[in-house]
Amino acid sequence: MQVEIVTIGNEILSGRTLDTNFATLARLLEEASVKVAWHSTVGDSQERIAEGLTRALDRADAVVMTGGLGPTPDDVTRKAVSTVLGRPLQLDEGVLESIRERGRRMGRRLPATIETMALLPRGAEVWPNSVGSAPGLLLLHRDKPVMLLPGVPSEMTALAEEHLVPYLRERTGRAIETFTLRTYGVFESQLHERIGALDDAWQGASLAYLPSSFGVDLRVTVSGANPAVVRETSLRAYNELFAKVNGVVYAEGATGMEEVLGAILLDKGWRIAAAESCTGGLFVKRLTDVPGSSRYVERGFVTYSNAAKLELLGVDEGTLKAQGAVSAAVAEQMAGGARGRAGVEVGVGITGIAGPDGGSENKPVGLVFVALASPLGEVVRVLHLHGSRATVRERAAQTALDLLRRHLLGLPVDASLD
Amino acid sequence: MQVEIVTIGNEILSGRTLDTNFATLARLLEEASVKVAWHSTVGDSQERIAEGLTRALDRADAVVMTGGLGPTPDDVTRKAVSTVLGRPLQLDEGVLESIRERGRRMGRRLPATIETMALLPRGAEVWPNSVGSAPGLLLLHRDKPVMLLPGVPSEMTALAEEHLVPYLRERTGRAIETFTLRTYGVFESQLHERIGALDDAWQGASLAYLPSSFGVDLRVTVSGANPAVVRETSLRAYNELFAKVNGVVYAEGATGMEEVLGAILLDKGWRIAAAESCTGGLFVKRLTDVPGSSRYVERGFVTYSNAAKLELLGVDEGTLKAQGAVSAAVAEQMAGGARGRAGVEVGVGITGIAGPDGGSENKPVGLVFVALASPLGEVVRVLHLHGSRATVRERAAQTALDLLRRHLLGLPVDASLD
Repeated sequence: MQVEIVTIGNEILSGRTLDTNFATLARLLEEASVKVAWHSTVGDSQERIAEGLTRALDRADAVVMTGGLGPTPDDVTRKAVSTVLGRPLQLDEGVLESIRERGRRMGRRLPATIETMALLPRGAEVWPNSVGSAPGLLLLHRDKPVMLLPGVPSEMTALAEEHLVPYLRERTGRAIETFTLRTYGVFESQLHERIGALDDAWQGASLAYLPSSFGVDLRVTVSGANPAVVRETSLRAYNELFAKVNGVVYAEGATGMEEVLGAILLDKGWRIAAAESCTGGLFVKRLTDVPGSSRYVERGFVTYSNAAKLELLGVDEGTLKAQGAVSAAVAEQMAGGARGRAGVEVGVGITGIAGPDGGSENKPVGLVFVALASPLGEVVRVLHLHGSRATVRERAAQTALDLLRRHLLGLPVDASLD
Repeated sequence: MQVEIVTIGNEILSGRTLDTNFATLARLLEEASVKVAWHSTVGDSQERIAEGLTRALDRADAVVMTGGLGPTPDDVTRKAVSTVLGRPLQLDEGVLESIRERGRRMGRRLPATIETMALLPRGAEVWPNSVGSAPGLLLLHRDKPVMLLPGVPSEMTALAEEHLVPYLRERTGRAIETFTLRTYGVFESQLHERIGALDDAWQGASLAYLPSSFGVDLRVTVSGANPAVVRETSLRAYNELFAKVNGVVYAEGATGMEEVLGAILLDKGWRIAAAESCTGGLFVKRLTDVPGSSRYVERGFVTYSNAAKLELLGVDEGTLKAQGAVSAAVAEQMAGGARGRAGVEVGVGITGIAGPDGGSENKPVGLVFVALASPLGEVVRVLHLHGSRATVRERAAQTALDLLRRHLLGLPVDASLD
């Protein structure tokens, strides 16, 4: 079943409000084995909504519309749908009563206009709204489902989960499996070269490359009529893909690098202290994004000045003078100092030139040193990063997290597909 | 001019990735006096992209497509556009050379597939990409502009700002003025009450409220045929709006709170050190987001453990035991300790419960104390924040920055419209 989602609302079309409803809905529909094939956004105009619905009915097997079901004059979805489907609006006494009942329960005097929400296209099935006033509506147009949901995200989500997904799941009876392998340390093009074209074993499966500053995610979706075949294809695809790229996979699904590292530290019962210069706190911020990270994050030192490096970490003044603050030797002393001063098992040192200024021929913007110290030994690496100040800092932090993950897991510290 | 935006990408259509590009683009187009009348999203399929473009050409005065310009086989936008517009793909030597040059500069061996990005529909004008490899493309189809931008948000934004907006602005010939007042510390509804309905002086102007965890931005756009009238209206609107809300305005345009604070510190010649617990480095990360911040950021202490608070900041063990780590007294000692130990003028202390666990009846999740110490005196405030762990941390950092800004400027420390 191929569905079209139509988002309704001037605030979305103007870019003022991010259309989070669409993303929520698309993911929920996937769980019902329904493929979103088209998405369109139209403003709060009867004509545009009618145009959008007509087109969607033309090409899709089912249509979901969100927004424009409220009581104000710019809420015109019901009218537009009524016109396109040729079903006059009629007062639904049951909906009217539930709107009034809700008003009484909340002890509010409701404006008269709110009762317009009880005017429904003839023959609509009502999906009660458990968190708001506007109900969801299901209409069958020549056996094609047209489903209307309100635009308030909490109401949309509740109605989709409680009514829309169960309804469509029953209707399609199709199976879907998805998985995501998250990689770090190699380029999208290198992954592509390694993975190559998908072969016959992948029948019914598709693979997407999703790059960001957190690495490249590989997402596979398998769908088909037979749940057993879909399951089997998905397993085969997983095994094949994993075998090709496992050297650079750091997590699956939506798990972040900081969560993976947190789990490793918890597992070992080790605590961490980090000393940062160019990342300015971002590395420890990433670590402490994880709930419960106080069990393994002991402290962080943002040693922006040389004085701070000397006093807080015991970096050697001679080394600092001879090699400069951005050097492998200083990174190592920062990692060792953080570890020793905090009295923890794991120390990290990061120093570099985030830019846009401060670079030189010998030490250009994007030059970053990362050092690790742990009971497993010491590591130092030089990175050559590109991009804006923000990008250099993000990549430096993510690379440091990955280096540490590899080090603690006993993997080769340098990411490679081989 | 009515434009259609077509977003291309399976990752968007599946709901895995939020379409932030659309919102960015819609706002930028508004600044070029261009109205976004339709938005559609299609998957990475040549057929679907062609279908989307055909429909858009049918109804819109101009088409902007984002995504699918990369080097992998699922990047098929150029092919689809070439087919619809009847313009064969041709190798563009200039683009090829700039891709190779970029590869050399970054010291990377690039795979051969990357050169497919230099295959352009005949007659395409090339918009150079200042932050990535795939250039933007402009094609005129029966004098209708078809503009292609890559899907990577930083590249899309750079190309839209540097090429697309100036091109469309020149094409439409309408005058536009926009300004943004950034506010922090009051709710959108309070601003709304204070500002009220727009009067006649605002002819041709519109006001948007843009709330985020950085506060509420007030954005005014004035457009018209006559540049002098537009300029005058914009000035009048600015003066009127500023008079109403200046008590909570921290910046104009896109300037962030961390930049404002940096300028104040530079101006005073003061340096800062911060001690953070619940924000875990985010406060100093914000400060060091600013290029050149090493001139005033001396160091940061992420004192996640009690031991770190005692050792690094000299927090009193008795106070810690009697009042707990999340208390006004400990925040004050953290600020004072950071200032004293670093030997700088300004100290900040932040301690709180970011959640989702760790709250209690007396100290619920979202309880945060912020303390400041400077030659101007000492301040401590308690915050009651709501939302996820990430939101609580973001708001704690932003509020601390604003409190410090007000303190250093000699303004009343508590934000108010009066």
